[in-house]
Amino acid sequence: MEQRSVRVGKEKIMETAEVLFTERGYKAVSIRDIADACQVTNAALYYHFDSKEELFEQVLDAHTRKLAERMQAAADRGDTTKNKVTAILIEYGQITADHRSPMFLMSHAGYKSQDDKTRAAAARLVKMMMAPLEDVLACAIAGGELRSLRRSYSPAAMLVGMLTGFYRHQRQCFDQGFTPELVEQVVDVFWQGMAL
Amino acid sequence: MEQRSVRVGKEKIMETAEVLFTERGYKAVSIRDIADACQVTNAALYYHFDSKEELFEQVLDAHTRKLAERMQAAADRGDTTKNKVTAILIEYGQITADHRSPMFLMSHAGYKSQDDKTRAAAARLVKMMMAPLEDVLACAIAGGELRSLRRSYSPAAMLVGMLTGFYRHQRQCFDQGFTPELVEQVVDVFWQGMAL
Repeated sequence: MEQRSVRVGKEKIMETAEVLFTERGYKAVSIRDIADACQVTNAALYYHFDSKEELFEQVLDAHTRKLAERMQAAADRGDTTKNKVTAILIEYGQITADHRSPMFLMSHAGYKSQDDKTRAAAARLVKMMMAPLEDVLACAIAGGELRSLRRSYSPAAMLVGMLTGFYRHQRQCFDQGFTPELVEQVVDVFWQGMAL
Repeated sequence: MEQRSVRVGKEKIMETAEVLFTERGYKAVSIRDIADACQVTNAALYYHFDSKEELFEQVLDAHTRKLAERMQAAADRGDTTKNKVTAILIEYGQITADHRSPMFLMSHAGYKSQDDKTRAAAARLVKMMMAPLEDVLACAIAGGELRSLRRSYSPAAMLVGMLTGFYRHQRQCFDQGFTPELVEQVVDVFWQGMAL
């Protein structure tokens, strides 16, 4: 019973910390703030995490895993490969539009991207986020539905880049928001462009 | 003669300010720093510009115009439409890799993107940067070489987004730099994807 209550405690701390970090950013949130929000002492937090940094890293990991699961679930609902990909990207766009991506949490945190350790962590989280899309596209390429790119270029990277870059530009220059139609337009051009 | 020396003075101030703003960012550079680097008094700067902000805005404008001219010159050297587009994007990639884009100057400046005036200025500069590419693609669409996108989506925005987003991801996850080959790969998929 003791064991179980400790596990529940950790989950609750991480959920609370996730909300606070997302709202205010890493730097602005102290261990005390999180402890207060959970109605526990600082010591209760230090029982589970060595430092605020360690807590934040675990929050980032759990956060990213949840998002990847949401995208995987979206993919599973699609019938054709193209529809699976569209569903993943609509989910992805919604996540980033809601400022829920691990990248947002990290940059919001005021983490320096120049730092090697942070850079490696960011790369790992982005790969985790992209895994469901990588898988669907790899299957489409293996099955002869799409061609592969030169060298070892990642088609998922191209597609996500296409979506995020296009969206950013449309928003910046034409004040347009994120819509499923924008995703469909991107997937449409990508699909024809990657056809054998 | 007096008239001429005033004009030369203004150009020199703007060139010097551009270098300092690029190296250190808007906030870190004072009117005094620029005056010192030009070996003139602060009053000489205020003869041409009402404020540091006005000087910065004029620098941003001149900077962006030069970059657009570089891309236009690259386009003019290409033989086919596809080669013109590739040449523009290689130039564009080089510019951003060198931290020479107006967006870099603005963000480096510590300008708040939440501010309406800054947002409008950023949109105007990005459109100015993109104009040579918009022109080439509009010709290709008018000439029946490429299809147009739904609604009023900008094909130049999609292509540049594709390049910058893809490059960012490749660099972040696979530590790959900007290469002409990356541009060719992007243009290749875009071209097939936009074919009629």
